[in-house]
Amino acid sequence: MNGFDVLAFGNALVDILSHEDDEVIIRTGVERGAMTLVDGTRADEIYAAMSPTTEVSGGSAANTAAGIASFGGRAAFIGRIADDTFGHIFAHDLRSAGVHFDPPLPPPGEPTGRCLVMVTPDAQRTLCTHLGTGADLDPSYVDEGLVALSALTYLEGYLWDQAPAKDAIRRACALARDNGRRVAFTLSDPFCVDRNRAEFVHLAEHEIDVLFANEDEITSLYAVDRFDEALQHVRGHCEIAVLTRGPLGAVIVAGDELHVIDPVPTEVVDTTGAGDLFAAGFLFGLTNGWPHEVSGRLGAIAAAEVISHLGARPAVSLADLAAPVLG
Amino acid sequence: MNGFDVLAFGNALVDILSHEDDEVIIRTGVERGAMTLVDGTRADEIYAAMSPTTEVSGGSAANTAAGIASFGGRAAFIGRIADDTFGHIFAHDLRSAGVHFDPPLPPPGEPTGRCLVMVTPDAQRTLCTHLGTGADLDPSYVDEGLVALSALTYLEGYLWDQAPAKDAIRRACALARDNGRRVAFTLSDPFCVDRNRAEFVHLAEHEIDVLFANEDEITSLYAVDRFDEALQHVRGHCEIAVLTRGPLGAVIVAGDELHVIDPVPTEVVDTTGAGDLFAAGFLFGLTNGWPHEVSGRLGAIAAAEVISHLGARPAVSLADLAAPVLG
Repeated sequence: MNGFDVLAFGNALVDILSHEDDEVIIRTGVERGAMTLVDGTRADEIYAAMSPTTEVSGGSAANTAAGIASFGGRAAFIGRIADDTFGHIFAHDLRSAGVHFDPPLPPPGEPTGRCLVMVTPDAQRTLCTHLGTGADLDPSYVDEGLVALSALTYLEGYLWDQAPAKDAIRRACALARDNGRRVAFTLSDPFCVDRNRAEFVHLAEHEIDVLFANEDEITSLYAVDRFDEALQHVRGHCEIAVLTRGPLGAVIVAGDELHVIDPVPTEVVDTTGAGDLFAAGFLFGLTNGWPHEVSGRLGAIAAAEVISHLGARPAVSLADLAAPVLG
Repeated sequence: MNGFDVLAFGNALVDILSHEDDEVIIRTGVERGAMTLVDGTRADEIYAAMSPTTEVSGGSAANTAAGIASFGGRAAFIGRIADDTFGHIFAHDLRSAGVHFDPPLPPPGEPTGRCLVMVTPDAQRTLCTHLGTGADLDPSYVDEGLVALSALTYLEGYLWDQAPAKDAIRRACALARDNGRRVAFTLSDPFCVDRNRAEFVHLAEHEIDVLFANEDEITSLYAVDRFDEALQHVRGHCEIAVLTRGPLGAVIVAGDELHVIDPVPTEVVDTTGAGDLFAAGFLFGLTNGWPHEVSGRLGAIAAAEVISHLGARPAVSLADLAAPVLG
């Protein structure tokens, strides 16, 4: 087994997607535009209210891993699946995308996690996640060999909501540091930030090397109203911060370095995975020695691709899309 | 006569506005989205091709002066008008907006300048300017007393296309410096930058304190493709740079300080004056001691107001719009 550019660590989920009017969001009482954790019973209720669905493999960090592989990068994933249909689909899709994924199968019990994704006419997505067996992701899943073999370990903030997964993140951070490797972390969701603000600030400023956040997340992290205020907090406190702003593009801050990255114009169909794929492009660039500005442009290319269709993983080769930039 | 916050120096023009389809732009053969200087005969030809028009006082730096006065700032203007109908209208409108304007009237000859403004359905504006008597604006117009009385002198790049006005700008810069006052300069137009690149780079980096430019102008100045590249050139080379990006907002760079200013959402009717009014807000803030981030927000407020209606001067009190920000 050779080394990896990025080891991604997150919830293994199969997405169950549908296009819905706002009326369904209101009727089911879920938080519009956010990710809500639900139990199996509630997930069944919401699923029953949804229009006909499409199933595709998802999971934030897994999407990022698939994106890195699509750029031609070497990616591995750690996450917990069950020995069931969704578990097999998840593993098949990740491996066939070129991502290394070889998890221990847990004893029979909870099913593989699923994420109900309702896409409203404004291309916004509302997520309800039943973690299933993923809720028991614990430090024993953090493979020291994989961390040591990977230039960078990427962790999703969503994991922080479960105590065992939080311990797993801490172990991954420690192992990466001990092995002289870098760690990246995404804030994942403004409500997730709300639930874990103090710990996330400490992580962002002291524990990790690369922070990913969108505008809602970074303003939530510092409890400020405007992006510029959050930017002033981040400057000088995070080693590298990649701040995405949807149609306003992205800002990258790294020490005294600062870049404003333009969005790549596209027809927006479904914003699911935009942040995951921006992270994929940036991390592929970073771990392959490209300047931050180029890495940011790769992020913008990947994000534009994924929002132009339903589903949170690339539909075409990102290496092909990146060729004009990388020469 | 008390002091002024800003002395604005530019072409005195009356705008002749119409809404036009692209077909008229093509038929008259003018450069879409740019400002083209034309002689009187050509101006008459284009005017004949235009739909019914509205006349309002304009001129880039004069619009900025009117904006500063609308914020409650103390503004003066220097520009050359003739003793004719348009000259009287221009002077009336500026004075009634609260701007000090007391030019010597030249001997009979060329008329007051006019600017044909064609607004296309995308809210873009195409400008054809006949400078008239304004083409003879020379250093004798630079009133040393006014420069010395003003905290900042603001100069429009458009002036650089006429040799006498270029000498007037040089004199204004020198007088401001000699009197310990600040100088701001706007690049005005990407084609204007194209015609004067080397001199504008020298001005921006060595002669002035505050540079205003939109995205097309700043990328033209440094002959680069992307905003971020221009940003890297500006950082460390201009004392204060205010870079506007239309619907993407604005970026302010001042030494190590950097701010990302969000656009203020509005219905866009006519983009004429957006840059002039952003400058008004920023300069009002700067000369009244507000932090750059607040001054930038004032710029965004003023720009949003002026693009929400036809015409390049504010239709409502900017002081009222600014009250929630300034408290």
